Amino acid sequence: MELETSPLALPFPDMPQISGVHQRVSRARYKDWDRADLTYVELDEGTALAGVFTQSACASSEVELGREQVKSGTARALIVNAGNSNAFTGYRGREAVEQIMDQVSQHIGCSPREVLVSSTGVIGVPLPKDKAREGVAAALTAEHCSWQDAAEAIATTDTFAKGAHTSAMVGDTRVELCGIIKGSGMIAPDMATMLGYIFTDADVAPAFLQDLLASANSQSFSCITVDGDTSTSDTVLAFATGKAGHARIEGWDSPGADAFAAALSDMCRQLAQSVVRDGEGASKFITIRVSGAVSDDSARRVGLTIANSPLVKTAIAGEDANWGRVVMAVGKAGEPADRDKLSIAFGGVWSARDGLPVDDYDEAPVAEHLKGQEIDLAVELGMGEGRATVWTCDLTHGYISINADYRS
Amino acid sequence: MELETSPLALPFPDMPQISGVHQRVSRARYKDWDRADLTYVELDEGTALAGVFTQSACASSEVELGREQVKSGTARALIVNAGNSNAFTGYRGREAVEQIMDQVSQHIGCSPREVLVSSTGVIGVPLPKDKAREGVAAALTAEHCSWQDAAEAIATTDTFAKGAHTSAMVGDTRVELCGIIKGSGMIAPDMATMLGYIFTDADVAPAFLQDLLASANSQSFSCITVDGDTSTSDTVLAFATGKAGHARIEGWDSPGADAFAAALSDMCRQLAQSVVRDGEGASKFITIRVSGAVSDDSARRVGLTIANSPLVKTAIAGEDANWGRVVMAVGKAGEPADRDKLSIAFGGVWSARDGLPVDDYDEAPVAEHLKGQEIDLAVELGMGEGRATVWTCDLTHGYISINADYRS
Repeated sequence: MELETSPLALPFPDMPQISGVHQRVSRARYKDWDRADLTYVELDEGTALAGVFTQSACASSEVELGREQVKSGTARALIVNAGNSNAFTGYRGREAVEQIMDQVSQHIGCSPREVLVSSTGVIGVPLPKDKAREGVAAALTAEHCSWQDAAEAIATTDTFAKGAHTSAMVGDTRVELCGIIKGSGMIAPDMATMLGYIFTDADVAPAFLQDLLASANSQSFSCITVDGDTSTSDTVLAFATGKAGHARIEGWDSPGADAFAAALSDMCRQLAQSVVRDGEGASKFITIRVSGAVSDDSARRVGLTIANSPLVKTAIAGEDANWGRVVMAVGKAGEPADRDKLSIAFGGVWSARDGLPVDDYDEAPVAEHLKGQEIDLAVELGMGEGRATVWTCDLTHGYISINADYRS
Repeated sequence: MELETSPLALPFPDMPQISGVHQRVSRARYKDWDRADLTYVELDEGTALAGVFTQSACASSEVELGREQVKSGTARALIVNAGNSNAFTGYRGREAVEQIMDQVSQHIGCSPREVLVSSTGVIGVPLPKDKAREGVAAALTAEHCSWQDAAEAIATTDTFAKGAHTSAMVGDTRVELCGIIKGSGMIAPDMATMLGYIFTDADVAPAFLQDLLASANSQSFSCITVDGDTSTSDTVLAFATGKAGHARIEGWDSPGADAFAAALSDMCRQLAQSVVRDGEGASKFITIRVSGAVSDDSARRVGLTIANSPLVKTAIAGEDANWGRVVMAVGKAGEPADRDKLSIAFGGVWSARDGLPVDDYDEAPVAEHLKGQEIDLAVELGMGEGRATVWTCDLTHGYISINADYRS
């Protein structure tokens, strides 16, 4: 099925090369298609590694291995297979991953443990070892490629290539961060797994890089949803080559730590939002700001419950300022809330205040706001100081068409 | 919007009159429509009452009051308003409910506390007191009506009237149970714009009736979902007039307790399933049987996670035996599971066993099964002895059309 580019798509940004990072692609032909589908990124010695992974209890071998590899804190290479997720394939799937790790590590002379592997695509079919071997061999000797080439090679049902670039000053040294991501929802193991990779020339201690990535994740990838479904393979990895040449960032007391953390957070937020912008069938990008919760975590859970509510998502698709459905979603979130303290605004205009419809509510500016592509929904719970922002998209006929008709 | 009758609709059953129960309907004209929309059921003295209600933190005044009324254990009347849910209307909504309780109690000479009120429909608009007063006055003196008339009068976006009849032998006495229910969307475990009423001539102590209803609820209304959304008004009430004339059922040791409990469970299951059969846009009725969980509760949560997964529901709409999406849903349920112990079957044919696709899997009978209207999905977790069955429907273009275009 050929999908049209999402109406919410952003152009691929200008992204500099990162010192110590060498990306290449090849054609493993995991599916019957005419495109690059294997991505190889070689990393110079001394590259720090951090990662966050799906919470799924049925994770793929790649994720199981990745969770272990991150503990060592260093990486020399990344392989991404597109077209076959290798999930739910038991020992046969694991063997295919180990073969790739061995092949790459022998080529560059490192430990297999330093070779990270991700796969995305069809579930339940072991990654074909012969195609993987040939694809990897071709990638190892391929020409260097652009970030956009790599972003396209890791994609599956994405309708546009996704990347982001941020930078930070660490003392007098400017460091660059480049990221690519694929996924058109936090969804199917078979089609829209989210795989994100961030590369920087900053010099960051692995344990601190892990802390920063986990923290950024909690305000970015953990705050987006398309349909509430969770892949068995979702992965975000960060690689820091240290080639920028500044004094290593060991922790919050190190010079530049704040600046780097901010750039990493910004990167994660941009990448996360770009996935929502490719949500299957999405026609509107929705920002949900929850305040007045008993804690930030509670606010995030309320926000995600609203964001995952089919009735809220279809109301926005229908450009209907249906705050009753928002009340419903708040009520079912299982978080502390009080009907008579709840306030709701679309596009900055309060429809309901303290549990009652606003008396002289003017729907005209709200209706105008809902006609746009960028929708803002604010929910004030009136219970405390907790706040969070989550992002989602609307639920349209396009989602049904893609998911009821597409055979993975 | 005029909706077509659900393809999964069942004919309205033959239902006997229940001794001590007197149902009537009237036109309060809560909306601009030409139909009965106010239902009044008068109950003879000594009628026992039990009830289960939405878990929503933003429940309506009717639900807040009902939770208190159930504690007294007796009822003399029920009023159901259709077309206005009176939810999220603050003190003004509460005043309207109290007016109805006063009006009815003065007419029949009982305590206002013995008058139960439910409302369903538009949210955020206080129930108009004048329409309620006139509607109630008309209903108090109306002719007796049929169960089907009552089932139609409590309906809102339902596409067919829903009722059920069961019976049981208590000693030598046959007791009858009749139930009516409304609801079609926003149906989730903790119920929805779902209003259900069960009437019996059995003689049951209120506290035991409450235990039985709560228990039946956990295997019926708590096991259905259409879209995972939860209404602010969901209510199921049971009324036992005691007119059948047998010795009162006080507890499990009373003669006939088992038989009555079984008939009540069967009633709740039939009513719950009828709501799923009217799920918005539903084209297939899906039974999900989860076994091998660490507990029955865990099995139910896994089942509901599968049942609420948009990717599973769209796959079934597309008649695609996509067990990969079932794996994904099990993985995200947050319950103990192990990828390598998981088995999945559609229509009794195992697609995956112990974490691997079945070797000589024959998809033909599965494809045939998925073309039908009644879909069976079995999931064996291999973790323990816990089991549960949940019911849902598929997710189709019809759901989007109804909810993106309908202003509730």
